[in-house]
Amino acid sequence: MPYRAPLSDFALLLDLLGYDRLAATPRFAAVPRDMAGAILAEAARLCETTLAPLNRVGDRHPARLENGVTRTPPGFAEAYRAIAAGGWIGMAARPESGGMGLPMTLATAVNEMMSGACLALQLGPLLTQGQIEALEHHAAPGLRALYLPRLASGEWAGTMNLTEPQAGSDVGALRTKAEPNPDGSYAITGQKIYITWGDADFLPNICHLVLARLPDGAPGTAGISLFLVPKFLPDAAGNPGARNAVTTVSLEHKLGLHGSPTCVLQYDGAKGWLVGEAHRGMAAMFTMMNNARLGVGVQGIGVAEAAFGQALAFAQTRIQGRTPTGGAAIVEHADVRRMLATMRAQVFAARAIALSCAHAIDMATATGAPDWQARAALLTPIAKAYGTDTGHEVAQLGIQIHGGMGFVEETGAAQYARDVRVTSIYEGTNGIQAMDLTARKMADGGAAAFALIDEVQAAAETARAGHPELAHEVWQAAEALREATETLLKQGLTDRFAGAVPYLRAFALVLGADAHLRAARHAGGPRAALARVAIRRLLPEHAALLAQAREGSTDLYALAPEDLAA
Amino acid sequence: MPYRAPLSDFALLLDLLGYDRLAATPRFAAVPRDMAGAILAEAARLCETTLAPLNRVGDRHPARLENGVTRTPPGFAEAYRAIAAGGWIGMAARPESGGMGLPMTLATAVNEMMSGACLALQLGPLLTQGQIEALEHHAAPGLRALYLPRLASGEWAGTMNLTEPQAGSDVGALRTKAEPNPDGSYAITGQKIYITWGDADFLPNICHLVLARLPDGAPGTAGISLFLVPKFLPDAAGNPGARNAVTTVSLEHKLGLHGSPTCVLQYDGAKGWLVGEAHRGMAAMFTMMNNARLGVGVQGIGVAEAAFGQALAFAQTRIQGRTPTGGAAIVEHADVRRMLATMRAQVFAARAIALSCAHAIDMATATGAPDWQARAALLTPIAKAYGTDTGHEVAQLGIQIHGGMGFVEETGAAQYARDVRVTSIYEGTNGIQAMDLTARKMADGGAAAFALIDEVQAAAETARAGHPELAHEVWQAAEALREATETLLKQGLTDRFAGAVPYLRAFALVLGADAHLRAARHAGGPRAALARVAIRRLLPEHAALLAQAREGSTDLYALAPEDLAA
Repeated sequence: MPYRAPLSDFALLLDLLGYDRLAATPRFAAVPRDMAGAILAEAARLCETTLAPLNRVGDRHPARLENGVTRTPPGFAEAYRAIAAGGWIGMAARPESGGMGLPMTLATAVNEMMSGACLALQLGPLLTQGQIEALEHHAAPGLRALYLPRLASGEWAGTMNLTEPQAGSDVGALRTKAEPNPDGSYAITGQKIYITWGDADFLPNICHLVLARLPDGAPGTAGISLFLVPKFLPDAAGNPGARNAVTTVSLEHKLGLHGSPTCVLQYDGAKGWLVGEAHRGMAAMFTMMNNARLGVGVQGIGVAEAAFGQALAFAQTRIQGRTPTGGAAIVEHADVRRMLATMRAQVFAARAIALSCAHAIDMATATGAPDWQARAALLTPIAKAYGTDTGHEVAQLGIQIHGGMGFVEETGAAQYARDVRVTSIYEGTNGIQAMDLTARKMADGGAAAFALIDEVQAAAETARAGHPELAHEVWQAAEALREATETLLKQGLTDRFAGAVPYLRAFALVLGADAHLRAARHAGGPRAALARVAIRRLLPEHAALLAQAREGSTDLYALAPEDLAA
Repeated sequence: MPYRAPLSDFALLLDLLGYDRLAATPRFAAVPRDMAGAILAEAARLCETTLAPLNRVGDRHPARLENGVTRTPPGFAEAYRAIAAGGWIGMAARPESGGMGLPMTLATAVNEMMSGACLALQLGPLLTQGQIEALEHHAAPGLRALYLPRLASGEWAGTMNLTEPQAGSDVGALRTKAEPNPDGSYAITGQKIYITWGDADFLPNICHLVLARLPDGAPGTAGISLFLVPKFLPDAAGNPGARNAVTTVSLEHKLGLHGSPTCVLQYDGAKGWLVGEAHRGMAAMFTMMNNARLGVGVQGIGVAEAAFGQALAFAQTRIQGRTPTGGAAIVEHADVRRMLATMRAQVFAARAIALSCAHAIDMATATGAPDWQARAALLTPIAKAYGTDTGHEVAQLGIQIHGGMGFVEETGAAQYARDVRVTSIYEGTNGIQAMDLTARKMADGGAAAFALIDEVQAAAETARAGHPELAHEVWQAAEALREATETLLKQGLTDRFAGAVPYLRAFALVLGADAHLRAARHAGGPRAALARVAIRRLLPEHAALLAQAREGSTDLYALAPEDLAA
């Protein structure tokens, strides 16, 4: 079935988040609520009509390297230009960068829709958005003036170059070198892998943000600097000029996202410019990565929505089994109902968490309040990991609902699962997100976490009148999360990390249940029925997860790796 | 890393199951314990050296239809012949059928190893084994004499033909027709899909067991009969003669198992012979399916073992991050330890359940005792669903441990996940297994389930002395399962089915914890450490699952399908 954008969820969540409060700030006064709705509807139209039809095309016609040229799937160039023409690439960029200056709340919703419609294509704009943000925060004025308008318009594209064969999650192990040139630029030499949209035939220029080490850079992450390295060196007029010394060596053969060119790039003294301060490249990259992590979280949610929509349509039309009045669509079977309701409840929960994170980013931008910054920082790893886990789980349930037809590629159900799988890995694996949550994001002694738990419990108190049973369960789960957080804060890092993934998921279940309860109270009807599914069926898992988090790590290290072999 | 067979697990489980008791029965007296070990070691050698190297080959060189000939991947023909030459296809067949008459316990272990080494290839022998069993139980003497020795030797192969485009899980909706011929045979006409190993260039003959409806067959499953339809009609000497009217129309393009030809077969008046009684085809097929379900369960476990072995080897050699003494292999990270220990604990639990099921089948065969038959019947859906879910979950954790390298196909981590995915679907989806458990297998008023729960609790009592904490938790979880079973027995079928999948998983968690506790008590050391992981980290999920099972179905049907759309 064709992709359908979740506009009713977005409308509800803008209410629940208090979008009007955001629009009342000077920073976002230009985007009142009705305009926000119009913007989302316009993006939905683009996604449903232009992007979604390309999703299967990209899978069947993978990007390929042909005589040194990276060929993209049919239709991708035109759709990319349509995204750019709509202003969607620069939607959250500052107006002085050539952007629309929209709130992240809206940009995040649009990114979710683009991901759900065609993830392989959306990756390109997402990385360009991240590059815009890094340059806005860290680049010198000359670089900003030259590059930002061309990136925000979508004329040029941007990439992130972190990974090397020996340096995946351990970025500090990188070997790429940067040598100063006499003209103030740098010569970059090294190989980078897994470069998403690292090359494409239809882009006039591609700008790589490359992590590399200066001659005087210390070992590890403290000695890494960030460089902007364009494929074509801009001439005096700012047009693409001479070819830079960066070569596309090969494209990866991947489980999914076949339409997205994932490149191995070789830099042989390529000319680049320092972004930010020398040896402070990781800090600059983290600016970019934090929002990119939210962006990846909504990739998971977008694919989940698409997989859910297809599974629901399939279940409503696939006849198997009989009722007294004839053949029955499988949606009438209790187990299929259970799967569909689970998928739907998970998608709404993940979406609510992601938009809460975006909203906190916007409130921090608009008010400068440290509390909102802390809230955004706390929610980012949860939004990333739970959003992408939801993408994976919902896509897998989608396959299951399709039965045997889920295993053959022609239905497209399997593609969602293949495509979304990497979102739990890239931009920091979900394990790393959980370590971030339990270490860096708890460096405040748990203040941000406890403040959020307080809000969940206060909302549950308010909801007791209308939904006593559900409110009670949410309150109790939040209390269990509070106690587990107190325990976690007493643990050493190794114990925390051993329980980090279950702890993060428990946190997400509580936040998801909170969003469902608020939705039930605000809208009632089917939203209340869905809240019941989320709170009575999905939330109870939190206890088992928190039990794991309390276990520490002793038992894990009691098993030597060689003891594990059967 | 190369596949390594889990012989130490098998040895331990033969102890825990009481293999000697089985070998003391007249039926299996010819296979004492030391011979059993030698047989498993011999199969392990074949799997490790001959089959495992073909796993990636099959993925990269998919089976394909070329001018009407079904080409198989390079090396598959030779390996298939090696399996046949070792007697492994007919290992559980009766000696009078040309088989070895081995216990299912050993055949199941061998099937797991073959699956772990190369699932795409193992599917062929597994289906032939199922056909042998169906013919042994239901075919007339003439058919048995002609076909069984050729199938048991692996000279010919067998397939199962149930599914049609409009009839997947709902077999009763099939349209294939069988018309009587004057010579006592039947003319079969119709189209069957998803026929695993439905054709192959190197097989001299392929024998299809086809479900079809006789002219006087009632609608639904009650009017279905079973027919044996060979690709080549045997001549007077029993050699393949004239080509029968069955055509391979196409091969499916699948998510995984690329090496296995999955065929659409067209029957145009093909000549076939009735197997069993007219209109009793479903009963005959169920004989075959029950053991095939156990076989599919161990497919999941075999792939899980292979994925685990590869992930463990990767984690021991992949350097990321540092310790005070230098780079550290990722196996030293707590979250990777958690994943590996989880995988290992799940695999052992699933393996113990599958071998318990096989042991019950053997004891039923050897003693004819109804209690053992009931035990085998109860365990079959649990072994199938939990074994295949374990395959899926462990393979996905394997991808996660590989990080970005898990998403590129060259490492092979993704292949395990792609290949194993269908095992949760075919031979009855795992949802159908759960419905079978909560309906047909509870038709005894829960007697078989309660008897098993009693045994778990009795074993926990015995274990209290050495492992008080773990024994307590297993006992309590078994008690929760007992209470949930009592609740389930009071529910109507729709409510049962709404909670069937979570209920089955809770049952499996309790049985898995029981196996780990017994292993801890029997062997101590690392087995006790692993039991702690299983019981303290994995078992607690049972409470959340049973909470779902208690929910019934009202909330699910309160949400209309159109209410689910976002």
